[in-house]
Amino acid sequence: MMTPKPPYYAVIFTSVLPEAGADYHAMAEKMETLARSQPGYLGMDSVRNEAAGITVSYWQDLESIHQWKDNIEHQAAQRMGKERWYQEYQVRVAKVEHAYSFDRP
Amino acid sequence: MMTPKPPYYAVIFTSVLPEAGADYHAMAEKMETLARSQPGYLGMDSVRNEAAGITVSYWQDLESIHQWKDNIEHQAAQRMGKERWYQEYQVRVAKVEHAYSFDRP
Repeated sequence: MMTPKPPYYAVIFTSVLPEAGADYHAMAEKMETLARSQPGYLGMDSVRNEAAGITVSYWQDLESIHQWKDNIEHQAAQRMGKERWYQEYQVRVAKVEHAYSFDRP
Repeated sequence: MMTPKPPYYAVIFTSVLPEAGADYHAMAEKMETLARSQPGYLGMDSVRNEAAGITVSYWQDLESIHQWKDNIEHQAAQRMGKERWYQEYQVRVAKVEHAYSFDRP
């Protein structure tokens, strides 16, 4: 995922989700589409395997992160996540200060 | 991964690695063990699937991140990564300002 020059913000979401079935994946896709339409959204990287996941979303500023967290549909998804899918998760809000990348020539 | 109260630093490493075989996994394990012995190391979250990976490592401060980046064995691993395994990667250095977690009761 290409992002603009720092500074910007990252939300690092790490989770353990042993119960994730088709309903989880449908909801994850829906939330990704919804996030994309939010003001200040810059992009997302996400990798999951059978039992764990890391999703990092990138945002212009803290204000856009707070708006996304408070979004009504996202709030409902967060509740379902706690009730149904997640064994545990951590959320870390971090200011990206420096970034570099490698592309194989 | 439990980490101390913010502020601390996160290095967000996202990669595309279509070529990762047993030699890659052996090296990744070796680097994880080496990272653990570095001053200022706080922990690591890592998830890979067939073709992509996200590793987030946590550090006390920027100084400990620079030391780890410059570590001789790690430098050699970084070179091999570019030559052999990674199609592309991004590294983002970010200051964690806020964190919270959920554990299913």
